[in-house]
Order: sequence, then structure tokens, then C-alpha cells
Amino acid sequence: MRLRNWLFQNFREVSQLYGFEEIDFPVLESEALFIRKAGEEIRDQLYCFEDRGNRRVALRPELTPSLARLVIQKGKSVSLPLKWFAIGQCWRYERMTRGRRREHYQWNMDIIGVPNVTAEAELISSIITFFKRIGITSSDVGFKVSSRKVLQEVLKRYSVPENLFGRVCVIIDKLEKIPIDDIKKELRSAELSEEAVEELLQILSVKSLDKLEEKLGASVEALTELKQLFSLAEKYGYSEWIQFDASIVRGLAYYTGIVFEGFDREGKLRAICGGGRYDRLLSTFGGDDLPACGFGFGDAVIIELLKERGLVPELSPQVENIVCSLDSDLQGGASLVAARLREKGKTVDLVLENKPLKWVFKRAARINAQRLIIVGSAEWQKGMVRVKILSSGEQYEIKVDELE
Amino acid sequence: MRLRNWLFQNFREVSQLYGFEEIDFPVLESEALFIRKAGEEIRDQLYCFEDRGNRRVALRPELTPSLARLVIQKGKSVSLPLKWFAIGQCWRYERMTRGRRREHYQWNMDIIGVPNVTAEAELISSIITFFKRIGITSSDVGFKVSSRKVLQEVLKRYSVPENLFGRVCVIIDKLEKIPIDDIKKELRSAELSEEAVEELLQILSVKSLDKLEEKLGASVEALTELKQLFSLAEKYGYSEWIQFDASIVRGLAYYTGIVFEGFDREGKLRAICGGGRYDRLLSTFGGDDLPACGFGFGDAVIIELLKERGLVPELSPQVENIVCSLDSDLQGGASLVAARLREKGKTVDLVLENKPLKWVFKRAARINAQRLIIVGSAEWQKGMVRVKILSSGEQYEIKVDELE
Repeated sequence: MRLRNWLFQNFREVSQLYGFEEIDFPVLESEALFIRKAGEEIRDQLYCFEDRGNRRVALRPELTPSLARLVIQKGKSVSLPLKWFAIGQCWRYERMTRGRRREHYQWNMDIIGVPNVTAEAELISSIITFFKRIGITSSDVGFKVSSRKVLQEVLKRYSVPENLFGRVCVIIDKLEKIPIDDIKKELRSAELSEEAVEELLQILSVKSLDKLEEKLGASVEALTELKQLFSLAEKYGYSEWIQFDASIVRGLAYYTGIVFEGFDREGKLRAICGGGRYDRLLSTFGGDDLPACGFGFGDAVIIELLKERGLVPELSPQVENIVCSLDSDLQGGASLVAARLREKGKTVDLVLENKPLKWVFKRAARINAQRLIIVGSAEWQKGMVRVKILSSGEQYEIKVDELE
Repeated sequence: MRLRNWLFQNFREVSQLYGFEEIDFPVLESEALFIRKAGEEIRDQLYCFEDRGNRRVALRPELTPSLARLVIQKGKSVSLPLKWFAIGQCWRYERMTRGRRREHYQWNMDIIGVPNVTAEAELISSIITFFKRIGITSSDVGFKVSSRKVLQEVLKRYSVPENLFGRVCVIIDKLEKIPIDDIKKELRSAELSEEAVEELLQILSVKSLDKLEEKLGASVEALTELKQLFSLAEKYGYSEWIQFDASIVRGLAYYTGIVFEGFDREGKLRAICGGGRYDRLLSTFGGDDLPACGFGFGDAVIIELLKERGLVPELSPQVENIVCSLDSDLQGGASLVAARLREKGKTVDLVLENKPLKWVFKRAARINAQRLIIVGSAEWQKGMVRVKILSSGEQYEIKVDELE
């Protein structure tokens, strides 16, 4: 829990540095909110139930659909752009593996109302700020960046119907997870011609913008946006963190533009985080579309990475004072002393039973107390207590009223 | 969300003042963990399902059973006493009313391993510290305190079997919620004699310890403990907050000793918080019993009370700086400036599109920015930006490197 609080505190502080406001959503949602027909993994692993009123409900697998609904609900009452973050628990129903639990937390940052790639650049910058704060460098972690508009361009050239786009992206996201022949088979069953499949797989292997320009020409939107993103990255000062990689498409059906993924350079772990632009999500829930982008950052893989790198911080319990009485008649005195210190904002562990001093010292060590305050009858009669500074062993008597 | 964070931050800081460590548990638990046979409301309102693997599961209605399980699991690896707090989401399946939602949060503090009422006194003290911090006084709120040992004493005198104790308590908790005749009927169906029922109801109307002593005699444990609690309250300095009231039994089956309840003195709202001693809970989960007590404090009724009293704090968004560029070519410059400020720990809202200054000023006002930093081409060529202090209107140019 100390580690979780430390991690979340870093998520929160970074989000605030970027001027984002915190939001949250219900944990239990109507199942319909998450049902899309693109064959996504997230849909297959939905943790869903029927409730006592025979409603189909689900523990949220992600936060973005709830966010979309909230944006629609707020309508014109909010001023754009919205910059919102959330740290929310999410669930998936699947076998548990390393860095993948049924229950996990996700840090999300979203920008609603900005069509420019300045938004994506800002989001990637915030994740990098987070990495730097916790001691992760660009030699540990990188970002692969692409745009779904690359695929869209190819599909357009082969006259593939637009409504197949999400499904094709979800299939392609399985590259390196399932055999290439299965990918091809799935693509063909999505009505792609043999030729289109080959061209698609060719494009996906491209790892530089120059090469991409050779293939698609300089005028396509995908290229303009990607170039702008890399140019902004230079200004922000995070060029060495990011690289173009056409094979990145992400596994969620709703992305429409830039997509990105944080990965560990040793290649041992699953994606650390991922995000992108989803300009057409709102209309799927019956709202008017707004340009939007965001990312999700889980709490599991990053902890694995910190462990790998020996970067998990030492987080010990920490209570400034431990207060005890020397006999049970003075327990009330100890309560009084504890109350005084707490009024002054000092943290106090009050010993609630009559225990030998040896026991008290052991407990003091465990909670890393700085001071031991002893209520003994001789001092108490003078309105005083005995203070022991635990680091130095220094001892003195002090009036209760003068305790700080 | 700002209000919730403010509330939770106060829960957290008070818990830390008292030397408690934060814990959390799964939201989705095995249903069996919450099934007890005492007819509690909490059991009737369980938000339960069958999962995809045909397991009976429930969204937790409370945190204490999970805590009990964790204590058993930890066994001898932890040193007693444990002082743990949690701020956890809980669910109930029932009709929604004022201050009662299906989904809510509960602040819990628990002390495991202390048999003395010093533990209960410490818990009540922490709640009062919380009230004071948020501006609630003893004329707004009080605590009714009793002990289940009072009832136990009466039941013993009428030879009522011990295994009926939990059930009787749950029935009595409905006093003032359902008609007295229904209470009597339910008690009789729990095998209590007419005489025992009358004596029980008599005792429940007692509102002073002197009167209780008259009825039960001075030697009963309930009385000794209650007297000690009131004496400790004096030392802590919270006597005016608490009063004895035998009708308080609380609605959870597992309490065994002192029970208490925070209430608003105007009597408009449901109980604000409640807790007590549960020395025999661990054995019901197959562990060895340990003395334990704790409380639950919901996030709904307290907000109602704060609204009633006009004590809900003004919590506005707050971002120190807003940074914008005067034309889209300089967007990268604005990103650079934002990155510099954030490196120095300053919060920055970066304007991500090319917007007129009028728009920027409106946004600055909405987020309560202190400074507006403008990246314009004349200054930028000199490596400078224009700064405007928004409270005073003061303006100056400054080198980007000198920005703090």
C-alpha cells in the first residue's frame, strides 16, 4: 500500500503539473458501455454479470467509455479543452500472469477538444515527466509512435470499406502475439484481398518516416502529423525517448489517429502504457464527436520494471512520536499528551496497554519514531513528562504545555 | 471530485496523526465472506452476482470481513497491535435515498490486539479530531455510546442462549426504524420470553450510567468499561461530545462490547459513523480470535451535514501558470517554456491551439492562474517571453532561462 500510494502520488502530481483535473467514474457500469464489435481482447475479457434486477453489468475494463459518456452528459456546460486525469481500478476476466492481474489500476490522462497533435505531444511529455521523477531514463524505456491514418491510407488505396477499419486494427495489434499466418487468415476473413494484406504487412514493417514518405508520398495527413509530433518532441526535449514504428496500432477499436506505446528497451515486459487519438468515440454513444486523445498507464508493469531496475523506493512506516505511560493509572495522562501533540500536527502512536519499556522501544524502532514520550508518576505530579530522542539517546523532562 | 479529495485527504491525515497505516482490499470478494445468519440489513442488501466461472461473488458491502481475513492471513508475521485505516468503496443493493447511494466510500480505522477500552477511546478521539478539522463542533454532532455487554447481561439473566445474541442485537437496532410491536414480535420469535422482552426494552431506554448501575449493579463488566471510557474521554478533552445511550446497539452482528454512533444533534440525518468492539470475529473465519475494534465512516451523510451547516469548502481549480504562443509557428516554443516551468515544479496549463488572447484570459480566469506567459515572435528571437501577473496586471519580459 505504501508503494501504491507513492506511485499514485506521482501520477497525481504529474497530472497536476500539466494542469489536469482529477475525475472518477462508477466501477460497476452497464455492460453495453463496453460492447464493441471489433473483436478486441478487452471485450473478450469483460468481467460481466447479471445483477439482482436482471441488468447486464460489468466491472469497468477501462475508463475511456465512461469518460466519453461524461463528456456527452456535460455538453455545453463545460469549456473546452477538457484536461482530465483519473486513477481508477479496472478489471479483466482472464488468467493471471506476471504484470497482469484481474484487478489493477490505470492512470488515464485525456484531452478533449484539441484536434492538433500538440495534444498527443503534451500527453507523451507528461508520461516522460513521470518516468523521470521515479528514476526511469530513456535508456530503460522508449515510446513507439505511429498513426492509424497510415493504415487507413493503405486500406483506402485497396478500397477496403471504412467500417472494417477498427476490426483490421485489432487484428494487426496481435502481430508478434500470434503467428503471422493466423494474422493473414484473419485479415482475409475481414474481406481484405491477398494484395492488400501483403501491402499492409509491408507498411507495418516500416521504422522511419523517410521510408514511410517513400511509400505513401509526402502529402498524406499521417505523415504531416507524425512529423509535427517529432518536431514538438524536440522542443519539449524528449526526442531520444520516441521512435516511429508503423507496427504500433494498439488493441482498442476506437483510435483514429496517432497511437503510441511505452515499452521497456530490454523487451522483457508487456507494454507499460499506451494511448492515442479517438476523434470519433463520442458519436458511438450518441453524442456529437469532439477531437480527443488520451492514454492508459497500468500499475502492474511499471512495478515490474522498477523491480528489474532496483528502483523500488524504500518506504518505511513513519510516526514521529510514541507516547506511553509507565502504569495503567496514567493511561489517561498519556492520552492527554497524545492529544496535545496531535493538536500541534504531530503524528503520535499511543501505546494503549501497559507494556514494559523494552516492548515500547521495539515498537518505536519498527515505526521509525523520533521521540519516545514517557508519562511517569514522579514527573506527572509536576505536570511534566520525560522525552527521549531516539536517534541520539538524549533525554530530558519537559512541561506538558511546552511539548511541541 | 475536488470535494471528495478534500474529504479523503482529511481522513488520511487524521489517520496518520494517530499513527495508523493505510491498507486496502479487493472490491470484488467471495460472497461467503459476507454471509452471516443474523438477519442484518447489510446482508439483505448485498450486491452479489455469479461470475463467469460460476462463483458467487459480491461487491464488498463493508471492509471489516476482508480485514479480519487479512489479519488471519498475516498471522504471527505482524506485531500487535495493528493500527490500520482504509478508505474503500462499498456497495449496497437498495433503493437510493438522501445520503444513501448504492456506491459509496467508507473510512475505516481498526485496532487489532488491544483488549482495553483505551482502543475505543482512541478511535472516538480520531473521529472527533476529524470533525474539528472540517469545522464541525460538539454542538453539531455527538456520539451515543453503549456496550453490547449491557444486553448480554440482561439476556444472561433470562437464560437466553448465547448464539441468539447477534440476532437479538440486529433486531434491537431497528428500534425507531420499525414499529415497537414489530420489534417485540421479532424478539419473541427469537425465543425471548415476554418478561425478557419487557426488561430488555426497559434497559434500552436508560440514558445515564448511574441509572444503569441501579439496574444492573456496579460489578458488571459493561459498567466498568463504560465508566473507564468516559473517564478517558475527559483526559482527551472530548467529554462534551459523548453521552451514554443504552438504545445504541449498531446493526452489525459481530460487535461484542462497546458500540458507538455519531449523530447530528438536529436529528435530521442518518448516523454519520459507527463502530465498536468485535473480539470474536476472527474465529468465525477460522482464525484465532484477537481483541479488535474499529469504525466505519461513510462519505455521504457527512457531506449532507456539511451542506446543512454551510461548511462545504470552496474548492476551485488552481493552476499557477498558463502558457500560450501568439502564432502556431511558436507552439514548439510554448512547449519548451511549459517544460522548463514544470521541471521547476510549477503547474502549467499549456494552450494547445492557436487562440485569441481574449480566449486565453478567460481560460486563465477559470483555472485561477497567477501568471500568463506569452510566447511572441519579437521576444522569442531574443530568447525571451512576456509575463503578465494576472492579479495586478503587471507585465515584463524575461529570458526563458530565468523563468522560475
